[in-house]
Amino acid sequence: MQAFEIQNQFGLDNLVAVEQPVPEPGPGEVLIRLKACSLNYRDLLMVLGHYNPNLPLPLRPLSDGVGEVTACGEGVYRVQPGDRVAGIFTQQWLGGRLTYERARSALGGERQGMLAEYVVLNQEGVVKVPARLTDAEAATLPCAALTAWNALMVAGNLIAGETVLIQGTGGVSLFGLQLAKIAGARVIITSSSDEKLERARALGADETINYRETPKWAKVARQMTGGNGVDHIVEVGGGQTLGQSLKACTIGGHIAMIGILGGNEATIHPTDILMHGICLQGIMVGSRDMFEAMNAAIEVNGLSPVIDREFHFSEIVSALRYLQSGSHFGKIVLNF
Amino acid sequence: MQAFEIQNQFGLDNLVAVEQPVPEPGPGEVLIRLKACSLNYRDLLMVLGHYNPNLPLPLRPLSDGVGEVTACGEGVYRVQPGDRVAGIFTQQWLGGRLTYERARSALGGERQGMLAEYVVLNQEGVVKVPARLTDAEAATLPCAALTAWNALMVAGNLIAGETVLIQGTGGVSLFGLQLAKIAGARVIITSSSDEKLERARALGADETINYRETPKWAKVARQMTGGNGVDHIVEVGGGQTLGQSLKACTIGGHIAMIGILGGNEATIHPTDILMHGICLQGIMVGSRDMFEAMNAAIEVNGLSPVIDREFHFSEIVSALRYLQSGSHFGKIVLNF
Amino acid sequence: MQAFEIQNQFGLDNLVAVEQPVPEPGPGEVLIRLKACSLNYRDLLMVLGHYNPNLPLPLRPLSDGVGEVTACGEGVYRVQPGDRVAGIFTQQWLGGRLTYERARSALGGERQGMLAEYVVLNQEGVVKVPARLTDAEAATLPCAALTAWNALMVAGNLIAGETVLIQGTGGVSLFGLQLAKIAGARVIITSSSDEKLERARALGADETINYRETPKWAKVARQMTGGNGVDHIVEVGGGQTLGQSLKACTIGGHIAMIGILGGNEATIHPTDILMHGICLQGIMVGSRDMFEAMNAAIEVNGLSPVIDREFHFSEIVSALRYLQSGSHFGKIVLNF
Amino acid sequence: MQAFEIQNQFGLDNLVAVEQPVPEPGPGEVLIRLKACSLNYRDLLMVLGHYNPNLPLPLRPLSDGVGEVTACGEGVYRVQPGDRVAGIFTQQWLGGRLTYERARSALGGERQGMLAEYVVLNQEGVVKVPARLTDAEAATLPCAALTAWNALMVAGNLIAGETVLIQGTGGVSLFGLQLAKIAGARVIITSSSDEKLERARALGADETINYRETPKWAKVARQMTGGNGVDHIVEVGGGQTLGQSLKACTIGGHIAMIGILGGNEATIHPTDILMHGICLQGIMVGSRDMFEAMNAAIEVNGLSPVIDREFHFSEIVSALRYLQSGSHFGKIVLNF
Repeated sequence: MQAFEIQNQFGLDNLVAVEQPVPEPGPGEVLIRLKACSLNYRDLLMVLGHYNPNLPLPLRPLSDGVGEVTACGEGVYRVQPGDRVAGIFTQQWLGGRLTYERARSALGGERQGMLAEYVVLNQEGVVKVPARLTDAEAATLPCAALTAWNALMVAGNLIAGETVLIQGTGGVSLFGLQLAKIAGARVIITSSSDEKLERARALGADETINYRETPKWAKVARQMTGGNGVDHIVEVGGGQTLGQSLKACTIGGHIAMIGILGGNEATIHPTDILMHGICLQGIMVGSRDMFEAMNAAIEVNGLSPVIDREFHFSEIVSALRYLQSGSHFGKIVLNF
Repeated sequence: MQAFEIQNQFGLDNLVAVEQPVPEPGPGEVLIRLKACSLNYRDLLMVLGHYNPNLPLPLRPLSDGVGEVTACGEGVYRVQPGDRVAGIFTQQWLGGRLTYERARSALGGERQGMLAEYVVLNQEGVVKVPARLTDAEAATLPCAALTAWNALMVAGNLIAGETVLIQGTGGVSLFGLQLAKIAGARVIITSSSDEKLERARALGADETINYRETPKWAKVARQMTGGNGVDHIVEVGGGQTLGQSLKACTIGGHIAMIGILGGNEATIHPTDILMHGICLQGIMVGSRDMFEAMNAAIEVNGLSPVIDREFHFSEIVSALRYLQSGSHFGKIVLNF
Repeated sequence: MQAFEIQNQFGLDNLVAVEQPVPEPGPGEVLIRLKACSLNYRDLLMVLGHYNPNLPLPLRPLSDGVGEVTACGEGVYRVQPGDRVAGIFTQQWLGGRLTYERARSALGGERQGMLAEYVVLNQEGVVKVPARLTDAEAATLPCAALTAWNALMVAGNLIAGETVLIQGTGGVSLFGLQLAKIAGARVIITSSSDEKLERARALGADETINYRETPKWAKVARQMTGGNGVDHIVEVGGGQTLGQSLKACTIGGHIAMIGILGGNEATIHPTDILMHGICLQGIMVGSRDMFEAMNAAIEVNGLSPVIDREFHFSEIVSALRYLQSGSHFGKIVLNF
Repeated sequence: MQAFEIQNQFGLDNLVAVEQPVPEPGPGEVLIRLKACSLNYRDLLMVLGHYNPNLPLPLRPLSDGVGEVTACGEGVYRVQPGDRVAGIFTQQWLGGRLTYERARSALGGERQGMLAEYVVLNQEGVVKVPARLTDAEAATLPCAALTAWNALMVAGNLIAGETVLIQGTGGVSLFGLQLAKIAGARVIITSSSDEKLERARALGADETINYRETPKWAKVARQMTGGNGVDHIVEVGGGQTLGQSLKACTIGGHIAMIGILGGNEATIHPTDILMHGICLQGIMVGSRDMFEAMNAAIEVNGLSPVIDREFHFSEIVSALRYLQSGSHFGKIVLNF
């Protein structure tokens, strides 16, 4: 079978195709023939060596993949051949709180990833995906959708009628928008592109802000909420946006720290957090329990993930470069 | 002004009109000219003397009313003349947990109710109602809607994708249906009337069960959830339905005990609760914080309360008799 | 090695010693040489066939055992030979919410139990036990202590200064007492024996009630709380006690349904739950995450489990008969 | 009666004694004769004009005071003459979430403070204080103790056995230490003084770190927790300490942002929050519900607040200068 690995040293040029034997599932394990993968910004950072340059090489990247179970090892009872499953991002995090042990089991990093025609995972590390989604759509769920779900529904404890501010139109952000809407929230979204804002509105966004035209968007977000500030923020900009987020957030509000697209250094005023009782919380994807709960929500509400563009598996490097360009709206998918 | 009071002794025949001076708001109080009231089963029990026969008479019943602020006492800053407000069910329960002190401040029972052309309430005991609702619609919120909101969103911590079973098509039940849908849940509803079930489906119900045809509806509800059981139950039948509810509920599920339409004696098997980790929880309407959160959800999602029939204020006794008949679908409202 | 199994049919007389080969750990599994087991009422019900008479025989009972890891299968990294571990009650419930799948993995029931000189468990199904406890003490934790921990600390969300009412002086009850005290709560305990109440007081109980002398103990419990009622109840009596518990519990209080020593049929008035906003919740032991959190609390606070009496492994039937007599105070342990 | 006010402009020299008539309680209000006040760092900032220089002058500072109710206005039922009460910090925050409206009702800032021989407060804005405390001890509770309680018990959801890191030995910090211990936690405390660390150990601290000798104390704190990091941090240093706090905190841990003694500018790396799933939360004292829950915990566990030094009411300026020196261990109190 074919797989892609980062070899010798990090860098997009060192991500190369390798021929390997199809793995065999041991006791409790399942063999999965991949149908689709999706890309996350973490995958790009991983290949570039910016995520964790201490990980041993060769390393097979990608956390997100969906496929068909083709063989089951001894003692497997959670799934059977023919089932369509996704690997869960953090293989050991089935439920409850995140621990270091669980965090160390992430696919496409500490553990070999999904960028292969076949993978073997423990039966505990997979979930069945919603039947109504295509393979490509289902492949977008494990990292981006689950991060948005955890940020809003679990960590943020979102309740209908609250206001959510979403930064940007990447994968996590659009899932944040769609999930917030099915949960009855009001959504404000930011982007540097009016065209993307228009598309976000078509997906359900109630209000839009072009942050290029309005760099101090916190003030506008406050006005949109009668001066009260927003209840939830999906913070993907990191150093560049945190200051505005702290100003846009209501008293007792929740900021889910998810990405650092705008850099990993932020100067903050602790009183902005203190005097407003704000909760600033880091989100590391989510557990299998959360994944299954989210799948139920997707089924019940007919949510369709937004796919920007599909590449063939063999075009992974081009796909990552396209991700790097930042021009996408929604998810980038690989087909097999 | 005119008001209605239960005089001398309990009973529908003793609920009579009385002429009283328009009250004056003291410091921190507001005078409200009523526009609409709504009826709850508790009001009927109250008049009949079945709710709490020890309450002193005369007693002015009704917890739910909406009106216009026409005068404000000294030091009032939360509202101003012209604002349209509802009284909150439990006048002292602004936020946090329910206490005995707070529970003793319910309108139309421990405190004089809304069945009058004018009432005076403390400014802390009112909330502004959603602008998009008519007076009649807004009058349905304080008890029934808030009970459903608390049961599902606060006590039940409902999350999108979960399954909710709603018993019947009275006021609380239809709000339960509508609120569950705006929060992204799947809803199963029961009734003895196929015609009512059809109307419930038009309001968004995903599945329906006629409990007259299917008295052991728990089994059907389980089948509708792939054998897993439902996550939330809005239990209004009390003694008559609790046994089926315990069988229909999934492991770790939540049963909100809200009414006792089917009698106040239930024989249960504690192992049904124990072995399934079920949480059976009594719901006593909700706090002002919950009311305001619910109003935001109603605004954002365009929810319109279901009104079965409107009566004139002077027809209160007929309206209560109609409520007693149990033939309504949604709320019964009084106009002024 | 020696083990005990229920053979042919349920009943104490059918629990017999059998000679079996020492099992071998497969991939991800560990071999444990047992040092001590403890008995729970569930074990007695299991042997008698009262717990689940449909379980296939032969069945090796007992959920609670502590031993030394003597061998590890391939891929084991969570423990190593020499570690002292306990099996977790529900082998698949590592964290998060209880599911049917997880519930079906309980030791000494759906899965073979700990009543053997050696057992093999998956590495995920064991936890290291607190170093300061003896083997016998550590063996009391998996079911009784964890049930009390979950009831009060997790499901009950106990906070220092609250009042807890504990029924009886069996294993779960004394752990409830001890854990409530280390968390800063006030404890009222009931028993039919003044001598046991005295011993409970020595363990930290603040107030005691002899329920034989005071069958309507709810009234006394209310007096002890200034009329307010208790915040938490550890309900082990089931049908016999639930009525009093509902009367003793404060508004918004929590009743953890744990046992049915007084029968499995209870007639309740739903309004007792409804009008007091009580939460009545079934508790099914707890997850591995809870077990580890509890172990930390035991270490930090120097809690020593109360052992009533120790038997030799070979005396299991006598030990179960002693448990059946109900005369114990704390836990009954088997040594090897 | 005598009172102190900041007059004309901010500054310690402008805090002067004024003679005023004893106020009279209106409807729902109570008159309190002060017995003791306590000082918080916020009071010092307030007088210096560093807290909110836009507040109108003259301003009577101090949030914390305890006294005897000497008269009640019409309709007062929560307390009666002779009761010993404290004012609650945020007069309108009785329960539930903090809102801007509630935050604007803080004593000694937006509202006139307690630095007077008599004050009038709404009956909703006072709580009875634990009988076992002296007046001076009870006066330390409203701001410092309640902040620590909220940080750990409510926002932090502390559970027995967890590890808490406390920064320094000021008022909030020592309450954090004492409250964490009664809840069964393990406590690490930092100070620049070995003598203070020794006294903290006598109060129950399990581990101590002299941050002058060990500026990179995060590493030591990690070692004290077997490399795992601490579960809760009471962050009072702001800009100076936040970086170390983020490194000392375990995955999924909670940092309560309470003070900015080390400056109000912090440069952080968002990935420190993101990759460790840390929750950094601002704490604004607490609600009346929390105050009453804390009082119960103080009663049940016999907690005695630590008083560093007592001044006479007339020595307020000296007392504030002493607070400014930072040499105290525990609370500074004013007597009348």
